[in-house]
Amino acid sequence: MEQQFVDRMLALVRARLEADDLKGAIALIEALRPPDQADVFGDLQPKQQEVLLSRLQVSDAADILEELEDEDAAELAGRLEMDALATILDEMEPDEAADLLGDLPPEQARIALEGMAEADEVRPLLKHPDESAGGLMTPELVTLRRWMTAEEAIAHIRSLAPDSETVYYVFVIDDDERLCGVVSLRQLIVADPTARIEEIMDPEVIRVHVDTDQEECARLMARYDLLALPVVDDDDHLVGLITVDDLVDVLEDEATEDIQRLGGAEPLDRPYLSTGVLTVAWKRIRWLLLLFVTETLTGTVLRHFKHELDTIVALAFFVPLLIGTGGNAGSQTTSTIIRALALREVDFRDFFRVVWHEIRAGVLLGVVMGAIAFGRALTWGTGTTMALAVSLSILVIVVWANGVGSVLPLLAAKLRIDPTVISGPFMSTLVDATGLFIYFTIAKLVLRI
Amino acid sequence: MEQQFVDRMLALVRARLEADDLKGAIALIEALRPPDQADVFGDLQPKQQEVLLSRLQVSDAADILEELEDEDAAELAGRLEMDALATILDEMEPDEAADLLGDLPPEQARIALEGMAEADEVRPLLKHPDESAGGLMTPELVTLRRWMTAEEAIAHIRSLAPDSETVYYVFVIDDDERLCGVVSLRQLIVADPTARIEEIMDPEVIRVHVDTDQEECARLMARYDLLALPVVDDDDHLVGLITVDDLVDVLEDEATEDIQRLGGAEPLDRPYLSTGVLTVAWKRIRWLLLLFVTETLTGTVLRHFKHELDTIVALAFFVPLLIGTGGNAGSQTTSTIIRALALREVDFRDFFRVVWHEIRAGVLLGVVMGAIAFGRALTWGTGTTMALAVSLSILVIVVWANGVGSVLPLLAAKLRIDPTVISGPFMSTLVDATGLFIYFTIAKLVLRI
Repeated sequence: MEQQFVDRMLALVRARLEADDLKGAIALIEALRPPDQADVFGDLQPKQQEVLLSRLQVSDAADILEELEDEDAAELAGRLEMDALATILDEMEPDEAADLLGDLPPEQARIALEGMAEADEVRPLLKHPDESAGGLMTPELVTLRRWMTAEEAIAHIRSLAPDSETVYYVFVIDDDERLCGVVSLRQLIVADPTARIEEIMDPEVIRVHVDTDQEECARLMARYDLLALPVVDDDDHLVGLITVDDLVDVLEDEATEDIQRLGGAEPLDRPYLSTGVLTVAWKRIRWLLLLFVTETLTGTVLRHFKHELDTIVALAFFVPLLIGTGGNAGSQTTSTIIRALALREVDFRDFFRVVWHEIRAGVLLGVVMGAIAFGRALTWGTGTTMALAVSLSILVIVVWANGVGSVLPLLAAKLRIDPTVISGPFMSTLVDATGLFIYFTIAKLVLRI
Repeated sequence: MEQQFVDRMLALVRARLEADDLKGAIALIEALRPPDQADVFGDLQPKQQEVLLSRLQVSDAADILEELEDEDAAELAGRLEMDALATILDEMEPDEAADLLGDLPPEQARIALEGMAEADEVRPLLKHPDESAGGLMTPELVTLRRWMTAEEAIAHIRSLAPDSETVYYVFVIDDDERLCGVVSLRQLIVADPTARIEEIMDPEVIRVHVDTDQEECARLMARYDLLALPVVDDDDHLVGLITVDDLVDVLEDEATEDIQRLGGAEPLDRPYLSTGVLTVAWKRIRWLLLLFVTETLTGTVLRHFKHELDTIVALAFFVPLLIGTGGNAGSQTTSTIIRALALREVDFRDFFRVVWHEIRAGVLLGVVMGAIAFGRALTWGTGTTMALAVSLSILVIVVWANGVGSVLPLLAAKLRIDPTVISGPFMSTLVDATGLFIYFTIAKLVLRI
């Protein structure tokens, strides 16, 4: 829906630029909301971007740099005059400015930072990794004291006139500057104007340390429906705030990572079409190779059963079917368990409950699939004993795949490896080799080869 | 972290209950935050839950029913006295109360609804499906008029004393009750007290219709960083509000659905360990069967090449390796494209760009993998021509898998089928059969069988 709108606006902006009507182009862009501005802007030519960015209102230029993908923003910022860049950086949210500075070449970042009026706000943020609470937080916050009245608190907030939406939770600090309470703006408005903050505030504040991982921050905010999460340092001093829009970005990024890893590829850092073919291939080749090496095990198993294959070539007909079904059953299990782990519905202590759950589900599935495979093998005219071997193999392989598919992600979580990494493709590769072994062993026994 | 805390609290509550100290147990539960209350509560025995729920403060009971999983909440509510249930429902957020009523047997829901004081707020919500904007929204909202001053607006909000966090965006309606603007509570506080609402408000309000799908609502809120999204009916009358905590739940649910579908299983509606083995198996069997039937194609292909297999049994050794690698390359592609589609980074109009991107990535990957396969086949002592056939097949299969892996999700999106449904397992099953055909055709040509 917005995509069509953005495409049409892009066409209009381009038409203005081609007619050398810079003012017209600027008016169009300034009429848009920031995410749409960034989308239109991102599709212009580099030269056009540079010209426009320096003519736009500084606040719009700041919004655009915030909304662009990190690498695109850094590339564009690197081409600007350092003075112009410093002015725009001053207008950006401090956490976004810090991220952008972190993506610039060190020398450029140093010069831009020196030119900034609000360098002091941004500098402490540069110390923290992007994916920690310290990297996500904004240091712009309004703090209250316990002895203030609700009326005084509102007047205080009004006098600071914060320009961001960080005021919906206001934090209270004690004489040692330690975080000691939280009030929502709603509570302040609704409260008796003469009530003291310490009477209204909730002293039990959920907080995170600057080093906390962003995924943990997001999980806390999602669990407790928080609009803002305070960040403290080693001495419990309030140093910043994570807002709900950051939470949403983190949730999306983490889901993207999980989904790409499930497919057996390193996550891409940028939108798909802006990622070069070489990078795409590079992100995948390591996994593809590792899986290839593991998969060569299947060849070893097959050569081990060369005699059986020589005797009955028809055994080979069922190989892809059997290992494919094992892989599918295993994928169903891993993807379910991985998600349950991510949502903290299960953890390693549920090991036996989970595995037992999956084994039973595997038996149910295996019996049904085995029965159907038996019928199918008969219609291929393979004879009853062969059909029996195939259907028994399906049963055992499905149960085995469910077991492996549940054990692997749980073990990974225990060893603090991201369970998605050893998931999908890795699990099916493992099930391929072991499944073949199960199949030929059963066939050997049933067919007495 | 919270899990350990919840477990310890659970042990304490159980100890109180065993000592027949109901008051002590209630005091412990009432000291917790709602999500923790629900976790502790959910692990108690049904009998204990009933006894406790009727003794807890109504607001705590309401929080617990809101936080429990839908089916658990419905089960528990169904066991309560209808009067007690009606009192608790009155205290719940109207959208949550409507969801719960929708999950009860119709006769019970009717009686409970009749007992409610706020039935009129909940009744309209029952008309909308859970997964639409109308099902997500809360009808509790504060509206302003354009001619009010900022001071009057704040006084109006204070006089209504809304008990939820829905006041951070306040919506303005015109004389025909149509939505005509939005102001944030921050703007009201910071504004000159005598300024009129129509001067402060943003008249360009992003809104959704009651029938809009929840995923679209979540996407709009995430894109534009909205804390609340207004919902309108056919006449553009403001009928409700979707808040950011609903957005977070939708994002998590949608990611769960995508991940489970990628694994080739219908999404579970409940937390993993509360889902019975039969349900787990049932959610999977349809896909497993469908894939099984598709996978029998591989047997057909193999039987078609029976002569070649009879001549050189060693051809079979490479079957799992080749189709496995094809499946892996295809999975990498589908999972990337599916995520790019979900984030709207690409759509069907990018068809040729995407496919071309993947084909080139496939050629890069295929050349590398083919070279390695050539070496590996030689060390297995298969002879140069056989090694050549294998490595050529790998190259073609990887390129083919990348192509299929990008075309399928794009086509699904075009046909408005959820791309995850035809993803992972389905794609690899398809690549298995076609990969075999490619392999044997190449082997036949190279080895002149």
